[in-house]
Amino acid sequence: MPDVQSLRDPRNVAIDRVGVKDVVYPLRLRTSPCGGRPPGEQGTVATINMYVSLPHHQKGTHMSRFLEVLNEFAGEGVGGDRPAPPALTPECFPKIASAICERLNAAEAHFEAEFTYFITKLAPVTKSPGLMDYRVRFTCTSNGAEDFVMSVSAPATSLCPCSKEISRYGAHNQRCRIEARVRITPPELVWIEEIVAYLEKAASSQVYAVLKRPDEKFVTEAAFDNPKFVEDIVRDLALLLEADPRISWYSINSENFESIHNHNAYAQLTRDKRGEPAR
Amino acid sequence: MPDVQSLRDPRNVAIDRVGVKDVVYPLRLRTSPCGGRPPGEQGTVATINMYVSLPHHQKGTHMSRFLEVLNEFAGEGVGGDRPAPPALTPECFPKIASAICERLNAAEAHFEAEFTYFITKLAPVTKSPGLMDYRVRFTCTSNGAEDFVMSVSAPATSLCPCSKEISRYGAHNQRCRIEARVRITPPELVWIEEIVAYLEKAASSQVYAVLKRPDEKFVTEAAFDNPKFVEDIVRDLALLLEADPRISWYSINSENFESIHNHNAYAQLTRDKRGEPAR
Amino acid sequence: MPDVQSLRDPRNVAIDRVGVKDVVYPLRLRTSPCGGRPPGEQGTVATINMYVSLPHHQKGTHMSRFLEVLNEFAGEGVGGDRPAPPALTPECFPKIASAICERLNAAEAHFEAEFTYFITKLAPVTKSPGLMDYRVRFTCTSNGAEDFVMSVSAPATSLCPCSKEISRYGAHNQRCRIEARVRITPPELVWIEEIVAYLEKAASSQVYAVLKRPDEKFVTEAAFDNPKFVEDIVRDLALLLEADPRISWYSINSENFESIHNHNAYAQLTRDKRGEPAR
Amino acid sequence: MPDVQSLRDPRNVAIDRVGVKDVVYPLRLRTSPCGGRPPGEQGTVATINMYVSLPHHQKGTHMSRFLEVLNEFAGEGVGGDRPAPPALTPECFPKIASAICERLNAAEAHFEAEFTYFITKLAPVTKSPGLMDYRVRFTCTSNGAEDFVMSVSAPATSLCPCSKEISRYGAHNQRCRIEARVRITPPELVWIEEIVAYLEKAASSQVYAVLKRPDEKFVTEAAFDNPKFVEDIVRDLALLLEADPRISWYSINSENFESIHNHNAYAQLTRDKRGEPAR
Repeated sequence: MPDVQSLRDPRNVAIDRVGVKDVVYPLRLRTSPCGGRPPGEQGTVATINMYVSLPHHQKGTHMSRFLEVLNEFAGEGVGGDRPAPPALTPECFPKIASAICERLNAAEAHFEAEFTYFITKLAPVTKSPGLMDYRVRFTCTSNGAEDFVMSVSAPATSLCPCSKEISRYGAHNQRCRIEARVRITPPELVWIEEIVAYLEKAASSQVYAVLKRPDEKFVTEAAFDNPKFVEDIVRDLALLLEADPRISWYSINSENFESIHNHNAYAQLTRDKRGEPAR
Repeated sequence: MPDVQSLRDPRNVAIDRVGVKDVVYPLRLRTSPCGGRPPGEQGTVATINMYVSLPHHQKGTHMSRFLEVLNEFAGEGVGGDRPAPPALTPECFPKIASAICERLNAAEAHFEAEFTYFITKLAPVTKSPGLMDYRVRFTCTSNGAEDFVMSVSAPATSLCPCSKEISRYGAHNQRCRIEARVRITPPELVWIEEIVAYLEKAASSQVYAVLKRPDEKFVTEAAFDNPKFVEDIVRDLALLLEADPRISWYSINSENFESIHNHNAYAQLTRDKRGEPAR
Repeated sequence: MPDVQSLRDPRNVAIDRVGVKDVVYPLRLRTSPCGGRPPGEQGTVATINMYVSLPHHQKGTHMSRFLEVLNEFAGEGVGGDRPAPPALTPECFPKIASAICERLNAAEAHFEAEFTYFITKLAPVTKSPGLMDYRVRFTCTSNGAEDFVMSVSAPATSLCPCSKEISRYGAHNQRCRIEARVRITPPELVWIEEIVAYLEKAASSQVYAVLKRPDEKFVTEAAFDNPKFVEDIVRDLALLLEADPRISWYSINSENFESIHNHNAYAQLTRDKRGEPAR
Repeated sequence: MPDVQSLRDPRNVAIDRVGVKDVVYPLRLRTSPCGGRPPGEQGTVATINMYVSLPHHQKGTHMSRFLEVLNEFAGEGVGGDRPAPPALTPECFPKIASAICERLNAAEAHFEAEFTYFITKLAPVTKSPGLMDYRVRFTCTSNGAEDFVMSVSAPATSLCPCSKEISRYGAHNQRCRIEARVRITPPELVWIEEIVAYLEKAASSQVYAVLKRPDEKFVTEAAFDNPKFVEDIVRDLALLLEADPRISWYSINSENFESIHNHNAYAQLTRDKRGEPAR
């Protein structure tokens, strides 16, 4: 059969990224060892993008190979005879980026995976257990060198300092979503749980899955005692990330779903500790 | 050219609804006369679905005719030589449903349009003007008789009575989204503005586009003075709709984007005043 | 602490459904034994809604109990000292609905879970393995009796019979999404895999994750040999479900993302085999 | 009342962007004069973001002023006594960016608006008129200098060259979405209609709102005669934009919703004609 993709292209236009987008795939995650517990494992679902650069002279890339590389890293479960389901693990991600580069003969490859990550969290007073869900995105680039950026986003509570200051009682508060994208200098390792802790520390109060009445009293008063503008949230988060030597670059934002408006308050900042201009 | 759709179908399966979905189309709306102002007009964008029932013996419907009916009602602007842009008006909707029925030779036709509606609203203290956006959906069915359901959804503030009661100070509050779907007995007429007024009255506080500091103080204290569970919101809204004789049926809900959780609180109820079982 | 929710409500308005919406939670699924393989297990992520009816005299429901019931069924992993992650299994769903009813003292309870389900599928010619993702939703109602509805939705290819008939060559085709909601009479059991097989059989061609060139040739020709309107897809699916005695009711639809338009073609039908009027 | 936002901030962290996000607002657009028609006007709905940079020493920005600036540019309709509805026009956008800068005393301001734009388009053979909807986004930055980027995205048809080549008959095709973001050197002016023409020329075939049978035959055969990979689409679009001297920078992509897969094919490239490194 003719291989149309391998033909020579006369237009002289190189392509930055070409590949597959919105591939839905199972993922298996190690969970952080904490409080004396051994590390565990959890299953989740990732939405994956995989791209390569394409030189000006090549007509097309071979799309099915992206999926084949995924399946190889997911283990013998895909099409094999084991009952165990195939699934990726995040440890594979940089290797997948390199493997794509090689298999598709590309100068550069990008691998992105976004997924839900669960953490068991105890209510602040009654210690009732609950499961919190966070959105996580890993982005790996391979082009000879390797680059790795992790994004974690957490829901939290923000309580408005201005509303508290000017009102006789009460203060408007709301759910917000705080995100940190961080670039980690290899061979450093940062757990998702550690970034979540930074995000939740930067808000007026954490949110929880299960809150009994003593807990609800606690978080209501905690938020009132700790009012924060959207500006305060990103600044306090910036100070925490600035102080962590494993993180060489970060881009952070908070979006507050204002309870008194139908639009959102938003703040964002990006810093490169390596002295290079931010990107 | 052969007309495949008009062939006889041997499978003996009638289809409840077949047609076009997610047609994006401009819409022109009359705005309510209020405060002595003459009625005005505003332009918006609708997402439209149009369906007919198909008898068991007919192979297919003629999809392009749905769009042709739309264009006829939108006026000479479509393809004409006037600079004025084509646009539907809601007054056409029941006529479009009948016209589809006739043009496609169907026993029943459905027309649905969802769009944003803007209302100028003054801040509660400073009277600073702002524009609020509401989501509206009109659903018309034509099958000999006519049926018409209007849905309006408004953002608002809810403040938790339990949190207020048990805490020394503060109370968690959040944005919520309240929706009323109402069936209006012809020839009655209910303005979108009237449903919005019911929705906003049912919440702890209204939300606004522009709030200066005296306004922010006002809405913060108003919400604190008027705590409501999601259950209270739908109950108070039910009482308001129950008392309006133009409305013969309603289905209402509120979704509260809890500031202390990553999930939402939700309540829903449906009532048919005509003594028939709810649907 | 005062229990505001247990107060008596004077408004005399019963609420059909009140509870928690959009709870994100891990789920563990048994996979169908097939081809001699023992049944396996896969991890996924569910979005869950849980509601109860609330009598007119009670002010509010106790929202945290919904989450506590979930955690109990998810096993000792939540807050326990085992490394194994907590996760629900679909076998629990009817039991969760009953447990909610009882714990919240309600006449009726609803449990809904939507999640991604993966099936390993071989390419039609080269037998290259790939992982397909399907959207599944389970809905359980408990009110003395039990009701259970399963929804499965699959992507597929549709190729237009009219376009094929009238054109000298080619025919427009596109991705479509076909959904079947089925009510299963206990104690019957229907696997997700079986519904997927019905859905994929109803389309012009199945879709695959990995297709090598001989496979791409095969599916291109298969779709061209099997043209279907959106009406044909729901009719052929209806015949398949009608013939399965385990299914007592079904509601099916197909949405075709037309390659020649910016809107979609859509067809839907609902049948109740038990001789009752459709709902 | 105290002005908390104006306090001095001790943390020494400047913020890149702070402001309001997802403000929904009416917009009025001039339509291109074409075919001898005078220019017209159409109403649409924009989703708007407005941000300023915040120096390290200032605690917070004044969020309500963003909305006040919007209202001033929307005209006397907001809160005035004219029935005419307030609405922005795109001509205001750069002025809004400057006005925000000044009103909020900021070194830099960003204004973004995304909206639907309609164009009347005739079917290729029968000349039946139809309305096409396109997504448009305008981004203005003001920081002493002015920067302006326009993004236009159009649906179209792509037909796979490999599938056509290797199959005895037929070829898989699908809807795709092609986007061009372009930076225009002032005082140049580029109409939305011109970018749409580039986008639609780059695909295998255009899509239409209304197609009668002779039109459907035409577009089916046209796509078959003009097969394109996702790589071909971005390359051909790049050549068109490269040749337009009014455009100094562009970033383009195409996403093809493959009819034979449940994932998408994607290609993207960015070029800066001014000889600076791409961003």
